[in-house]
Amino acid sequence: MAPSQSSATEVVDIHTHMYPPPYITLLRSRTTVPYIRDIPDLGPRLIILPDEVATGRPIGPAYWDVGEKLKFMDTHDINTSVVSLANPWLDFISDPEEGTRLAREVNDWFEKTCAESGGRLYFFGVLPMRAGVDAICEEVKRLKALKYSRGVVMGTTGMGDGPDDKKFEEVWAAIEETEAMVFLHPHYGLPNDVFGPRSGEYGHVLPLALGFPLETTIAVTRMILSGVFGRFPELKMLLAHSGGTLPFLAGRIQSCIEHDGSFRKGEGKSLNVWDILKKNIYLDAVVYSAIGLKAATEAVTSDRVMFGTDHPFFPPLGEETKWVSVQTNYNAIEEGFKDEDSIKVLGKNAVEVLSLKH
Amino acid sequence: MAPSQSSATEVVDIHTHMYPPPYITLLRSRTTVPYIRDIPDLGPRLIILPDEVATGRPIGPAYWDVGEKLKFMDTHDINTSVVSLANPWLDFISDPEEGTRLAREVNDWFEKTCAESGGRLYFFGVLPMRAGVDAICEEVKRLKALKYSRGVVMGTTGMGDGPDDKKFEEVWAAIEETEAMVFLHPHYGLPNDVFGPRSGEYGHVLPLALGFPLETTIAVTRMILSGVFGRFPELKMLLAHSGGTLPFLAGRIQSCIEHDGSFRKGEGKSLNVWDILKKNIYLDAVVYSAIGLKAATEAVTSDRVMFGTDHPFFPPLGEETKWVSVQTNYNAIEEGFKDEDSIKVLGKNAVEVLSLKH
Repeated sequence: MAPSQSSATEVVDIHTHMYPPPYITLLRSRTTVPYIRDIPDLGPRLIILPDEVATGRPIGPAYWDVGEKLKFMDTHDINTSVVSLANPWLDFISDPEEGTRLAREVNDWFEKTCAESGGRLYFFGVLPMRAGVDAICEEVKRLKALKYSRGVVMGTTGMGDGPDDKKFEEVWAAIEETEAMVFLHPHYGLPNDVFGPRSGEYGHVLPLALGFPLETTIAVTRMILSGVFGRFPELKMLLAHSGGTLPFLAGRIQSCIEHDGSFRKGEGKSLNVWDILKKNIYLDAVVYSAIGLKAATEAVTSDRVMFGTDHPFFPPLGEETKWVSVQTNYNAIEEGFKDEDSIKVLGKNAVEVLSLKH
Repeated sequence: MAPSQSSATEVVDIHTHMYPPPYITLLRSRTTVPYIRDIPDLGPRLIILPDEVATGRPIGPAYWDVGEKLKFMDTHDINTSVVSLANPWLDFISDPEEGTRLAREVNDWFEKTCAESGGRLYFFGVLPMRAGVDAICEEVKRLKALKYSRGVVMGTTGMGDGPDDKKFEEVWAAIEETEAMVFLHPHYGLPNDVFGPRSGEYGHVLPLALGFPLETTIAVTRMILSGVFGRFPELKMLLAHSGGTLPFLAGRIQSCIEHDGSFRKGEGKSLNVWDILKKNIYLDAVVYSAIGLKAATEAVTSDRVMFGTDHPFFPPLGEETKWVSVQTNYNAIEEGFKDEDSIKVLGKNAVEVLSLKH
């Protein structure tokens, strides 16, 4: 708990993941990335990126057991969590029927689990992103009818050709129609060679700390540049990791648009990144510094930034019960804000923006 | 001029480029990137990136004529400029003798030009980066003896294998020894395919607004992770474009280091990004927003952020005499700071940090 946080302060975690049992069964059945396998002396390991096939990362009940999720929440003074399937979602399921079936299974599991949680859990649903526009839109609509669904989680590739793919606009239309929040989250990062010949010596720091945030920034900037927010003005996008780098680079993006002949005429002319930030964009508070958090808040206003943990990722390397990664984000809120804004970012915004009942 | 800026406020531009005549002659003689060629109906065009060979960008006297530089300075109320060769510097000169000769010619031209400027111009020198360690170190030492030299400008590749290349450490040692400021500037960006299949429809926005800043961030993060700042604790790095994305991502980088088993032991253990920011890093104020600028200033303190323009890049698309790109950065200082910090960022910091005499 952040030092000034009173016990009455509502804390909502809007960036917290699970792999429900049907998804775990799927990962255990696979032999290509993503998959889970038991490695001698290391135990069960999760491999979700091609460059981690040697050892992957440890995976345990924190990924699939709702009891573990609630225990983590209790340990970290979190009242309510809006859980979402972790990357890479269903992006790798090319068979439309399998994708559609899995999306339903996963979403139904989340719905049931949330219903049994005594009001502590809500969820962002997953879409069968390789099953075609109709199947995706149908799941968008089905989710709208589920009591504990509060939006959809997705990666940065849309149906495979990007979030600025014209063919994807039917999906944006369906999402706008249902008023679902879109939780946009990275997975693919950047090609390894951009990190240089010695990136292997630096663990996962470069892809996780720099590749992930840039992936998110590129995706949302492509949406801005292609005019998606002009055509779907009510879209609501919650960007992971405080927008990647968007709050810091928004000025440079806007300046580059204003200085680029390609955007002098037509639709692009009225593009204003700052307007889109304050109209369509919401940010989590998973940025690990007061400096980043203040930039995020100034970019989208303090009504639109919401606490998150990224659980079960970034566990402590030692035996600590309280996670350093969580505490760092609590500290950033404590350092960066006055009381009122702190209360908003910790939970009040999420309750209002996502209509969480209490 | 920013509205509250009094006429007595000293303004120093530390991010401003030129291509001196010997460099222009070189570019005109070449037929592969980088080069200058006359395109019918368009006039002389500069092509410095492989993806702009079709039309390049207009190039005129603002790139090589010191009279134009001074006129630009007068128009924008800039008292003093610390000019530097623009990218791609001498990175493409593989012949050691040619590189060594050109570095001297360019630096001597800058020295003479600054000497004749009546105290209005200083410069960051260029190094023959493909001419071998000895030639590079010799030019570092020779620059130290030039009266108007205030450091060196360089790209992100070092001698070709990155700024974290062990073989480059002799150069870091020479630079630390001479107390030269290193102005680290992007050029190579990111591979085009990371910007998706429609990036061609978005002009140069994605590579310039996102690729450039990430290139700088990757380079300096590699230096941090490889321990360069531990081995050369007095290194002073001035990062272009307010550090790319470093002020915003510093927290995430630090958190990823703390959560990565690779950095639990040995040298990396004591790595602290925030300490390095406040000890070794200086930032320009070329970030086009008060939000970005405040993050930059909080990351490195208000004594270490310095105004810049990026002239002659980002000229207005219309006939405006005052450049929007410059005014946007003036406005960011005006919005973001109280008077005292504003005076520091506009010029006082540069005068003190770079020992500019007045």
